[in-house]
Amino acid sequence: MTVIAVAQLEPRLGDLPGNLERSVQAIRRAHAAGAEIIVLPELASSGYMFASRAEAYAASEVAGAGPVTTAWRALADELDVIVVAGFPERDGERLYNAAFMAVPHLGTTVYRKVHLWDEEALYFEPGDLGFPVVPTRHGRLGMLICYDGWFPESYRTLALAGADVVCVPTNWVPIPGQRAEASAMAVTLSMAAAHSNGLVIAAAARVGGERGQDFIGQSTIIDHTGWPVAGPADATGITQLLADVDISQIRRSRSWGNFNNPVRDRRPDQYQGLG
Amino acid sequence: MTVIAVAQLEPRLGDLPGNLERSVQAIRRAHAAGAEIIVLPELASSGYMFASRAEAYAASEVAGAGPVTTAWRALADELDVIVVAGFPERDGERLYNAAFMAVPHLGTTVYRKVHLWDEEALYFEPGDLGFPVVPTRHGRLGMLICYDGWFPESYRTLALAGADVVCVPTNWVPIPGQRAEASAMAVTLSMAAAHSNGLVIAAAARVGGERGQDFIGQSTIIDHTGWPVAGPADATGITQLLADVDISQIRRSRSWGNFNNPVRDRRPDQYQGLG
Repeated sequence: MTVIAVAQLEPRLGDLPGNLERSVQAIRRAHAAGAEIIVLPELASSGYMFASRAEAYAASEVAGAGPVTTAWRALADELDVIVVAGFPERDGERLYNAAFMAVPHLGTTVYRKVHLWDEEALYFEPGDLGFPVVPTRHGRLGMLICYDGWFPESYRTLALAGADVVCVPTNWVPIPGQRAEASAMAVTLSMAAAHSNGLVIAAAARVGGERGQDFIGQSTIIDHTGWPVAGPADATGITQLLADVDISQIRRSRSWGNFNNPVRDRRPDQYQGLG
Repeated sequence: MTVIAVAQLEPRLGDLPGNLERSVQAIRRAHAAGAEIIVLPELASSGYMFASRAEAYAASEVAGAGPVTTAWRALADELDVIVVAGFPERDGERLYNAAFMAVPHLGTTVYRKVHLWDEEALYFEPGDLGFPVVPTRHGRLGMLICYDGWFPESYRTLALAGADVVCVPTNWVPIPGQRAEASAMAVTLSMAAAHSNGLVIAAAARVGGERGQDFIGQSTIIDHTGWPVAGPADATGITQLLADVDISQIRRSRSWGNFNNPVRDRRPDQYQGLG
């Protein structure tokens, strides 16, 4: 069994030391509760609503070389936990909306958000590293960020590469057509992706607001059946969710009866325009 | 504006004349209520749980040449409505789990279920016609059948071909992990597909049981926001749902602000193994 935690936080734009401290506290809190995989929100180190490229650049760092990713990696080693969290990555003059995964005593992996949302297009480059899948003692782990979840192709690519758990640092925001009485459409998309790919989704969202942009929380952990096993959390509170999942059982459950497995049953010869 | 109807019915295995009569009544009832596009369940002419290939063969017909599809086409012309309904299609020695679309005074289109579910694999061939999209006065219409909805590739292929409305004859059944208090996971999958592709989904399911197989109803019409605008219907009743949708407004709504459209924003260069 594997204990997964998602930390729903409220980063503050421009407060880099405070954001790092909040992320460290969240990781220690999740570890104290027994978590072995810990997921933090998108751009957890920086906040989200940059008003200029210079502001985004000032908040960015080279993966594994700046203070934030160095601290996350050290904490993963110290606590023997896998840490996944979002940060603005710098690579020469280029910036990426990235997620950092530290596997204790092994290495780190960067995922660069493939599908940019709204004014991210002004400051970040579209991700160019595909969708890495990292084999670990807790199964094969992938990463996605927020708007990537609107593209079933993202989850399918990860499933075809064998992912068991997809860690999703996110900053979900209000979208048109949302019904007040229901969970966010982002949760519905996550449920559908978990179910139709037979994998776990651990989505860590943020709360609060920045420069007129509200964030809607609703962090959740969804198992391979497509149903939440933790959350969705509420839309406004800083909180932590925990769930215990059995990766071996999940792999076993991907075949339905004698005939079906919705990853294996794909018919690429009948699809048009997807590749 | 376009009025769409889905008819939730209970076909009877082996009662071909009765099933045809039930389908005709359902089409007339929907037309009387103002419907312009009318969707009936999967295998509406035959029932579902065939125990042998011979039984499936005896219930099948050549599209446009047998009594069922001839009647549906005539009714579409008489009432000036688009009819979409499921039937077992015969083509030489081959059988397909198919959907028939009749556009009044124009023509007919057959869709053959691409993803076969469970023991369908014993009697039917996998669909080999891709995912046709039919331009009509009510926008561009596609078809899918039941388990096709577990493959986001199906909806994405239709969206990339410009589909505005996807008509889904279905026979949804109970699946492992379903939560008793919630709508079927099939509805969740449909909501996610409608939202992330900006199209309408009109799913006509069936009720009742055959040879130990229960069917779960929950027919629904979902608009491009991803939220049901009619249903989900209950799990046991024969019923009809109606919804009025504005195809022009739906097309206009596919662009989100200055930067985003989740069909246009796809990044095929970053996907692996989908094509």
